[in-house]
Amino acid sequence: MSETIKDLKRTHLCGEVSEKEIKKQVTIMGWVQKRRDHGGVIFTDIRDRSGIVQVVFNPEIGESLFAKADTLRSEYVIAITGEVRSRPEGNVNLDLPTGKIEIKAIELRILDKAKTPPIQIEDNIDTGEDIRLKYRYLDLRRPKMKKIIGLRHQVTKTTRDYLDQNGFWEIETPILTKSSPEGARDYLVPSRVNPGEFFALPQSPQIFKQLLMVSGMERYFQIARCFRDEDLRANRQPEFTQIDMEMSFVKQEEVMEITEGLMKELFSIGEIEVPNKIERMTYEEAINRFGSDKPDLRFGMELKDLSELVKDSDFNIFSGTVAKGGQVKGINFKGGADSPRSTIDGFEEYVKMFKAKGLAWIALRENGLKSPIAKFLSEAEIEAIKSKLEAQKGDLLLIVADQASFVAAALGNLRLKIAKENGLIPAEVYKFVWIIDFPLFEYDENEDRLTAIHHPFTAPNEEDVNKLDSDPTSVRSKAYDLVLNGEELGGGSIRINNNKLQEKVFSALNISQKEQEDKFGYLLEAFDYGTPPHGGIAFGLDRLMMIISRTSSIRDVIAFPKTQKATSPLTNAPAKVDKKQLKELGISLRS
Amino acid sequence: MSETIKDLKRTHLCGEVSEKEIKKQVTIMGWVQKRRDHGGVIFTDIRDRSGIVQVVFNPEIGESLFAKADTLRSEYVIAITGEVRSRPEGNVNLDLPTGKIEIKAIELRILDKAKTPPIQIEDNIDTGEDIRLKYRYLDLRRPKMKKIIGLRHQVTKTTRDYLDQNGFWEIETPILTKSSPEGARDYLVPSRVNPGEFFALPQSPQIFKQLLMVSGMERYFQIARCFRDEDLRANRQPEFTQIDMEMSFVKQEEVMEITEGLMKELFSIGEIEVPNKIERMTYEEAINRFGSDKPDLRFGMELKDLSELVKDSDFNIFSGTVAKGGQVKGINFKGGADSPRSTIDGFEEYVKMFKAKGLAWIALRENGLKSPIAKFLSEAEIEAIKSKLEAQKGDLLLIVADQASFVAAALGNLRLKIAKENGLIPAEVYKFVWIIDFPLFEYDENEDRLTAIHHPFTAPNEEDVNKLDSDPTSVRSKAYDLVLNGEELGGGSIRINNNKLQEKVFSALNISQKEQEDKFGYLLEAFDYGTPPHGGIAFGLDRLMMIISRTSSIRDVIAFPKTQKATSPLTNAPAKVDKKQLKELGISLRS
Repeated sequence: MSETIKDLKRTHLCGEVSEKEIKKQVTIMGWVQKRRDHGGVIFTDIRDRSGIVQVVFNPEIGESLFAKADTLRSEYVIAITGEVRSRPEGNVNLDLPTGKIEIKAIELRILDKAKTPPIQIEDNIDTGEDIRLKYRYLDLRRPKMKKIIGLRHQVTKTTRDYLDQNGFWEIETPILTKSSPEGARDYLVPSRVNPGEFFALPQSPQIFKQLLMVSGMERYFQIARCFRDEDLRANRQPEFTQIDMEMSFVKQEEVMEITEGLMKELFSIGEIEVPNKIERMTYEEAINRFGSDKPDLRFGMELKDLSELVKDSDFNIFSGTVAKGGQVKGINFKGGADSPRSTIDGFEEYVKMFKAKGLAWIALRENGLKSPIAKFLSEAEIEAIKSKLEAQKGDLLLIVADQASFVAAALGNLRLKIAKENGLIPAEVYKFVWIIDFPLFEYDENEDRLTAIHHPFTAPNEEDVNKLDSDPTSVRSKAYDLVLNGEELGGGSIRINNNKLQEKVFSALNISQKEQEDKFGYLLEAFDYGTPPHGGIAFGLDRLMMIISRTSSIRDVIAFPKTQKATSPLTNAPAKVDKKQLKELGISLRS
Repeated sequence: MSETIKDLKRTHLCGEVSEKEIKKQVTIMGWVQKRRDHGGVIFTDIRDRSGIVQVVFNPEIGESLFAKADTLRSEYVIAITGEVRSRPEGNVNLDLPTGKIEIKAIELRILDKAKTPPIQIEDNIDTGEDIRLKYRYLDLRRPKMKKIIGLRHQVTKTTRDYLDQNGFWEIETPILTKSSPEGARDYLVPSRVNPGEFFALPQSPQIFKQLLMVSGMERYFQIARCFRDEDLRANRQPEFTQIDMEMSFVKQEEVMEITEGLMKELFSIGEIEVPNKIERMTYEEAINRFGSDKPDLRFGMELKDLSELVKDSDFNIFSGTVAKGGQVKGINFKGGADSPRSTIDGFEEYVKMFKAKGLAWIALRENGLKSPIAKFLSEAEIEAIKSKLEAQKGDLLLIVADQASFVAAALGNLRLKIAKENGLIPAEVYKFVWIIDFPLFEYDENEDRLTAIHHPFTAPNEEDVNKLDSDPTSVRSKAYDLVLNGEELGGGSIRINNNKLQEKVFSALNISQKEQEDKFGYLLEAFDYGTPPHGGIAFGLDRLMMIISRTSSIRDVIAFPKTQKATSPLTNAPAKVDKKQLKELGISLRS
């Protein structure tokens, strides 16, 4: 059996023992990080949550204690009582906060022994992720992982402090509930009491938070667990966490201001500065300039509209596109003129993934202009294009002519690809931007109908309400997304608080009365009883944490994440269950 | 269409408008609580989250505005701009914080109209709970309910502040996970990616919090959602919330002290005082004195052991019970001597529910002693019993002779029944007590084996470890429950942090190697790699909230609760789902 801490009290944390304690007796408890023998003396580094401190066992402490110290191995859990002293000159380690002192052991208890761990307890290991997840409790011992878990606590605590100070109440909403309107696949939970019926796990607390506004709670928030049963892409998890907010009697600007204050506090935890007022950019401008509603503002290479310059060109691909209502736009890959043909072909393949029919290019090489399209363009047209794209010798101009949405997607993505591949994105630069004035609807080609860009409760801009019937795709909404470095941090909207307007929107979306009833009947009914103007926003906590802790894997910021196959190598969940359990639930497995 | 707040800004909350604002112009927004016409003037009470303020519309404000005011009905959502003024002498309402002032309306916007609500927006309504749950968003508008939701925010915020200050990190554990060892029925979630397999929703984060201790997080907490698919008793919910904590390198006393500090802060929110140091009582003493490990200390009527007094009695039911190792114990129902025979018969029926074979009684009536057993007892025995039970004229002595556990259950419950029925429990008295030194095991008659009283990871007292094989039921554990007024608020234990000891306990519990592997294999494996001494505790947040907000229904302290049939009348969850969804999950309904 191991020893116990029965009559012992920890006096200090390892990382906190300092020169102040020199000559004092301390008791520390923790894990053996490292043990080495040198000149007949045993040195051990002891680790706890706070850090590491060095403990020294001299043979003078007595034969039995020294022999016991000699049994110590990595990851043994021990308690040490000893006297703090300065390290001898040559042994000072300035990389370690406790590197000027050491503890001369007087007593040692071995609280638990340890097998050799399958993961090294240190940063920068190359252990496969499957092993790291299976032995997550060891992986979390590594300083980097422990730091992230601590940061996550700090981020959620700061969120709660800030929102509490601003009059928000944290209110829990159900996990066992009904399908919500996000439209991803739900996780289902069979009901035993009502066989044949199922709960759904929430994809977000959207409907509940709106009901809370109807109930007069005025300022709600929740750090809420959400669930989506989707095929997992790289940084997705079946369960994830959202900072979810909703406010009554506010306009869009007020939600954005509250959010800015929160972001300022949260990012400061990661030493990232958020401007007092974040730039606002309309959706239209973002698409025009960056080909994306999530523009990455850390570098230029903006899209320039060449349509006007080439609309009368003899080059039919350009002029014809403009004539049909399309666009001709280009970007300037500075210094890219000498890209080999294979690279440029790669660019063309790439833009085709975004439905562009092709990619025209003009390379301004040292020895002259090279371009497969130059021969179709006049001198003046080429000069105008060069001027519009601010081209200099050495640049590669890349041009797409197509319908507007294809041009934006093609060049917006090509811009990102070139920037990433050529190191054009500066490190540790953080460019926040609000995207506002989104269209309320977008046209879904596959389904040949309008769909809501945010969700069907998003309010239209007042001045566009009269176009809901006549020209719905031109109606702007009161939706807003916060974008950082080309990634969406969060998004929200002012909601419709009037049933007549809500019905108009449903009818534009072609959502039948029955579908309305089935999906959100109770929300619509609630709206009958006096609904305040309200709006809110939600942020993905996991992504925030990735940025603040500067890690590229979502699995690093969650204590017990799942694999991309939605399994847990640690617990082996999901797992088979007894037939009896299924029978109680009124379900059976399909064979 | 309704009007909007486009160019308006709320300057004050209703409940905050005070005499300071007299002669100033303010803009408030909220719901029409009440509207009445008096002397050609329209009075409305406007309500928001903060409270109520009176708004006055005079005809002088102009015909159209007055006509608009005349359309106001209860629960309309409006914005008012007006001038604050003192109320005329006779109209001052001192019951209302804003009762000395009123707002003379200058502008009115109707932000949303309202149908007549099916629930009165006021306290003390007699609306059935089914209606209240269906229209929960209206029920939550009532002052009492809104206050509880606000208190719940305050309680969780205070919990987080306190635990953060004490070095705890809040760490989220999975909701989609595997069965945990609590042994109640799990909610299951079919996996689509791994057909035929299921996640379980956690009954508590028990295993994860212990893994976090293995991982060196040292101080964990979480306000955690937990799930149990049980047939619902009165104050149970299928999903409930737990304040869950775990600490490393601590002894039982340290967990209890941290907990006491937390309880002090939380109960002070409800103006309930918690002593600096809560009384500790051993399990043995609690059973001996109160017949319960959840003793209600608000009143006396303690159980007294009469065994020694009657062990040689001619009355064979008493002496025979003692001879067989049983007990004879009694309680004194002060002033109960004149209880009619039917009441006493009722007591007897009641104790039989707890397996007692019968109930003996002695009534010390004004006109002499009345008792069916007196004739079998000697004068001296009767005197000794009276003396032990501190009996006076007018008292009713109630005695059970049986095996010890039946005696405790019978008299412990009878004591509570009599106290409740006779108003012996003082209101607004709060008696906290720690119950410690629980037995590690109890004998389960049905299964003819030992079971763990807390859970199988609970550590035995060091001095009892050597009795694990020889006399397991005498082994005390390092478990502790916090009890308030006869109800368990929370419980926890120091855990076993040593595999050898854990194996001994499993073997005493007769848990097979295979069952160990299946149920907690990964926790046991984790224990191989250096486990610190650790322990923790968990509290039911919902019950805490019931006490702090002085409500008797758990459904009052949860924003969106479920019925006792585990359904939501609001959302109609659970509900039928598409066959397509079930097919994707690889399950089908049993017909």
